[in-house]
Amino acid sequence: MSDLIQPRTLKGFRDYLPNTMMAREQLVETARRVYRSYGFSPIDTPALEYAEILTGKGGDESDKQLYRFTDHGGRDVAMRFDLTVPLARFAAQYSQQLGTPFKRYHIATVWRGENTQKGRYREFMQCDFDTIGTESNAADIEALLVIHDLMEAIGVAFSNGDLGFGIRVNNRLVLNGLLEKQGLQEQSVGVLRSLDKLPKIGREKVIAEMTEHVGATAEQANSVIDLAELTGETGDVLNSLETMLSGSEVGQLGVARLRELFSACLTAGIPSERIGLDLSIARGLDYYTGTIYETFLTDMPNIGSVCSGGRYDNLAGLFTNEKLPGIGASLGLDRLLAALELMEKVQTASTPAEIFIPQFDADRLGEYLKLARELRAEGFTVEVYPEAKPLKKQLKYCDKKGHRVAIIAGGNEFKAGVWQVKNLQVRGEQSDVSGANLAEHLRSLLR
Amino acid sequence: MSDLIQPRTLKGFRDYLPNTMMAREQLVETARRVYRSYGFSPIDTPALEYAEILTGKGGDESDKQLYRFTDHGGRDVAMRFDLTVPLARFAAQYSQQLGTPFKRYHIATVWRGENTQKGRYREFMQCDFDTIGTESNAADIEALLVIHDLMEAIGVAFSNGDLGFGIRVNNRLVLNGLLEKQGLQEQSVGVLRSLDKLPKIGREKVIAEMTEHVGATAEQANSVIDLAELTGETGDVLNSLETMLSGSEVGQLGVARLRELFSACLTAGIPSERIGLDLSIARGLDYYTGTIYETFLTDMPNIGSVCSGGRYDNLAGLFTNEKLPGIGASLGLDRLLAALELMEKVQTASTPAEIFIPQFDADRLGEYLKLARELRAEGFTVEVYPEAKPLKKQLKYCDKKGHRVAIIAGGNEFKAGVWQVKNLQVRGEQSDVSGANLAEHLRSLLR
Repeated sequence: MSDLIQPRTLKGFRDYLPNTMMAREQLVETARRVYRSYGFSPIDTPALEYAEILTGKGGDESDKQLYRFTDHGGRDVAMRFDLTVPLARFAAQYSQQLGTPFKRYHIATVWRGENTQKGRYREFMQCDFDTIGTESNAADIEALLVIHDLMEAIGVAFSNGDLGFGIRVNNRLVLNGLLEKQGLQEQSVGVLRSLDKLPKIGREKVIAEMTEHVGATAEQANSVIDLAELTGETGDVLNSLETMLSGSEVGQLGVARLRELFSACLTAGIPSERIGLDLSIARGLDYYTGTIYETFLTDMPNIGSVCSGGRYDNLAGLFTNEKLPGIGASLGLDRLLAALELMEKVQTASTPAEIFIPQFDADRLGEYLKLARELRAEGFTVEVYPEAKPLKKQLKYCDKKGHRVAIIAGGNEFKAGVWQVKNLQVRGEQSDVSGANLAEHLRSLLR
Repeated sequence: MSDLIQPRTLKGFRDYLPNTMMAREQLVETARRVYRSYGFSPIDTPALEYAEILTGKGGDESDKQLYRFTDHGGRDVAMRFDLTVPLARFAAQYSQQLGTPFKRYHIATVWRGENTQKGRYREFMQCDFDTIGTESNAADIEALLVIHDLMEAIGVAFSNGDLGFGIRVNNRLVLNGLLEKQGLQEQSVGVLRSLDKLPKIGREKVIAEMTEHVGATAEQANSVIDLAELTGETGDVLNSLETMLSGSEVGQLGVARLRELFSACLTAGIPSERIGLDLSIARGLDYYTGTIYETFLTDMPNIGSVCSGGRYDNLAGLFTNEKLPGIGASLGLDRLLAALELMEKVQTASTPAEIFIPQFDADRLGEYLKLARELRAEGFTVEVYPEAKPLKKQLKYCDKKGHRVAIIAGGNEFKAGVWQVKNLQVRGEQSDVSGANLAEHLRSLLR
């Protein structure tokens, strides 16, 4: 039997074992519930598309990450590397049929053949929501509420309360206003890329980069960083900005939109400590044109933003002449999952079943199965062991899996109409419970 | 602007628009809930694997369906075409770590480059559950309960009750016993393949095929079909079988396992009309070795089985010398979705939001958003329109999307502390509701 194939996965790919997968499902379910509660509708698109669709006209860095090949029909195809390009294609194809504004979420796997490094995989899930077809600031404000309520719901799901997070907001119009006033529009991409490095490399190195490589004067570079580093009470900072950007129409519009955003979020009930203006975030990507968001975990700022996004002017210019502005954000599912594991917020159980019923008496299999079905109808999750092995062996199994309660019944219990209920969370705690009281007793142990 | 890329999907691939996707999500959520309620744990495996893993040693028909290519690292890789081979690889790799019995479900996309035909796609979801590492009949019985409770739950989700279905059960040991008695063991694969065609082509053609191509005598072929066509009350049929298969140990074991299965299912509360012995189903696949299941919709028998599976002796023989028997089944998600659409059980709304709040007064955006968040905290799904357009336009939007209730408030309503609630399901029905009574009123309209 030397002919066996070695069971293994490809480099950069991973299997999800039950306890990690249960945590991933809980994250996905939470995101889906929050997105739906705001009226975002689910869509899905194929994993494989024409390579032309995914690469657009461009062809540099991102091409190399593509899993691209020729299919049986001779077509040049590739696996999607994000959910934004498929959304652009989708929006161009159906916007007439679906109408705008169009609010969608999309939770799906993407693939990038990039070099693997610490915790980065070649296959991972994205978890995006977007509102397309409106320039209204109400959609920007709503996106911030969605991020807030999502992070709060994840805290409730994994931490019985507050996970500890802050959302940082900026508006590219403010930065554009400053660049305009400083005559730096032409160098804006370089300036913003450098600015993004501020938290990592510090003021002096950013200034050096801007003056040596981007073509700004020291004075210009300093003024950009002065603005980025403005801190204080949000209202005060916005007032200072208004003065600094006097004469710049885009700059003033940016300030006005930020002002409305903070005001409406507070009215809508977001605690002020959870949202902050941070003029240093620029999100280097070229396509952001307005509000931008980043979200940090209070206890783990170094893992970076776990939910980011922003406003863009023109989603689907590659595919249609219809101008489709929009706003959205993406939950960094795998990054957050890794953080939750580090914070020990992921449960260790590897079964979704709370209750374990051993087969104490093989002749009563039908009755054990009946009891389990009755408890499922009451909303419990219940596993019946498939073999009538010695009780000790069966209890060893459930100890390994992490069930929380065991219900044991043999001939005596069936005769007396009572069940022996073991609370597996507290060593030695067990009681005899009559059938009529069973569901209530279990609720008291489990809820 | 003639430079646009035509937005389109590959042949055999499809986009899921919101209302279809909402139905698919509901099916997936229902399956997940039922699988978990029985203690099956979720896993996931990569979409891409070494081609060698997916093809095994074989290399005929299924190879042609593979999306197979060489990756950047020169590896021969392919996209998974089912979830069974990845499960085999997974089980071989982790069975020591996870222990047995191991119960898992796996809901994921698979790809097959086969010729597209009526409603078949090259990308589709599978929705499998399996119990591995036990030969106990209790696992076979449980699998039948899972299929039953799943179909029942889908009926509740889509049909407010009974969808109308029947589960047909057989056991390959019974057929093997007959083949043994008839001296047809060598021809078993051919015989079972022919037998599978009985409902489609009828008795005479099956006999012709068995005698002309498989090498059975007319008498042998007749005896196989006689057994397959045995009908009557389950207990009576099992008694007849017992007699017909006297002297065959495997045959008797098959009858005994079927007897225990029907008895335990009835004890566990399955209505007898929902499960039936059907000796004609053979499920031609070679790897089934015991109990087999098929599930048919009462009103749409012609679409075929929507949930099928069975017992196998050795899941992972390609990857390990450890013998891993198991039992499982797969929900035919896309087939069932198509059937639900034909039966008009899929809702037409394209939004998950029940409640629509138009922006009647742009200055009160924060207050609309606050109201919406308060209602979400009460468990409602609520959409706020992003632009303060004329009310008529906003209501046209929600009419198209399918919201069920609109809450309208302008200056007067805010002053009086009442909300105008429109029941969009009943033309012209609306009432003024105070803030304190709002949640209760909405519950009465929506639940």
